Amino acid sequence: MPARRSGGYAKIWGMSEVGTLVLLRHGESEWNAKNLFTGWVDVDLSAKGEAEARRGGELLREHDLLPDLVHTSVLRRAIRTAEIALHTCDRHWIPVRRSWRLNERHYGALQGKNKKQTLEQYGEEQFMLWRRSYDTPPPPIADDDEWSQVGDPRYAYLPPELMPRTECLKDVVNRMLPYWYDQIVPDLLEGRTVLVAAHGNSLRALVKHLDRISDEAIAGLNIPTGIPLRYDLDRDLRPITPGGIYLDPEAAREAAAAVANQGR
Amino acid sequence: MPARRSGGYAKIWGMSEVGTLVLLRHGESEWNAKNLFTGWVDVDLSAKGEAEARRGGELLREHDLLPDLVHTSVLRRAIRTAEIALHTCDRHWIPVRRSWRLNERHYGALQGKNKKQTLEQYGEEQFMLWRRSYDTPPPPIADDDEWSQVGDPRYAYLPPELMPRTECLKDVVNRMLPYWYDQIVPDLLEGRTVLVAAHGNSLRALVKHLDRISDEAIAGLNIPTGIPLRYDLDRDLRPITPGGIYLDPEAAREAAAAVANQGR
Repeated sequence: MPARRSGGYAKIWGMSEVGTLVLLRHGESEWNAKNLFTGWVDVDLSAKGEAEARRGGELLREHDLLPDLVHTSVLRRAIRTAEIALHTCDRHWIPVRRSWRLNERHYGALQGKNKKQTLEQYGEEQFMLWRRSYDTPPPPIADDDEWSQVGDPRYAYLPPELMPRTECLKDVVNRMLPYWYDQIVPDLLEGRTVLVAAHGNSLRALVKHLDRISDEAIAGLNIPTGIPLRYDLDRDLRPITPGGIYLDPEAAREAAAAVANQGR
Repeated sequence: MPARRSGGYAKIWGMSEVGTLVLLRHGESEWNAKNLFTGWVDVDLSAKGEAEARRGGELLREHDLLPDLVHTSVLRRAIRTAEIALHTCDRHWIPVRRSWRLNERHYGALQGKNKKQTLEQYGEEQFMLWRRSYDTPPPPIADDDEWSQVGDPRYAYLPPELMPRTECLKDVVNRMLPYWYDQIVPDLLEGRTVLVAAHGNSLRALVKHLDRISDEAIAGLNIPTGIPLRYDLDRDLRPITPGGIYLDPEAAREAAAAVANQGR
């Protein structure tokens, strides 16, 4: 176990050891398989995505990294990933928390659009700006668009000014961080092993914060699907190993390369 | 909507309307199919049990009885029943709460035993006393029995004096009621539709309390599996329709008769 710095959050709380954070990005969804922008559209996992979730659960079990509680988004593909992985490692009974703040980035008017067609229609530069720039959101989705979430009962308690019509990664960081500080950090300060089952961009937002990645450098970071990413944290909630540790590093390298080629 | 009495809990809370309680007993498990006493042993649903959970979710959807949050035991067969039913009616995203206090009755030394063999070994009278009497528990299970739950991490926070080695229905009522009062009633007083996905005996314990069924009469009550049972409650949290309303009354009658013949 690496030496831990004194002071910080944990000292305030009187804790001798901070818990362990485990990030898990959902596997292939039905729309990933069709190469469509998904965002907040609530599609299910594909059979391949279900297998990825089972593999994620097996890795947790093999590494004896058993979560004490789980946080998910309110989207089916992250919820089912958590359910399948936790049943696989016999942790189906742990407390569950959910929040829209862990949702995938809202893809605005691109939701439901084919990635390849969007690339051809708008060109490489605009396409990559929407996909990878930190602060350029796609055009907002119309409330009467078939892929809008306005009127979805799961967001009924959200004040209108919080309900996104599009988001850039910066927007995701800003709406995710309150959940990190208020709901996840307290569990870590109690020494728990905390699983966060979420999405490519909500997890990139969290990793950007944890590893203090710059607005520019985050564009190059891909988080592979279905492979648990372990962060041991010091008493200031800084990663002891920057970038964390994938439970299957070889598969993580291969998967990250594949994600980078999406839309081609 | 039936007339509601004034006063009671809801008035204290300033609510105009109490929420709706929906009870769902898990469907066939792998051990139900083998006719074994299960209790706290954490077996999975059978394929038939999964189909029952889907049917439960379809009934919730058809009757537009969509839960705002769900309470489950910490046993896999109730957890999966809730997951499957909620995915089926598009309510997978609602808040989840779990407690050992909603677990099935602990069947003591009978856990893992064949029901038919137990009936033959001990005779009809003793068998029915263990199965149906209100206050006669089976012999306690030994801590080193292969079907004991001592040492199971999900009960690690339970003080030793609360960890059962056997239970009669009276014991289940006594350990279930604090959860009803402290965790479920507040949700109902906020006007929510609350799903409780649990077990034959923890739900019998709750129904006994709600409908004020005597210690003797509860022996004759069977709750069928997989069919949501709706309770509308008045401001004193008393059922407006005693016994509640099954969403599929015809199937409920048939299933209750089948449960009564178990072990024969």
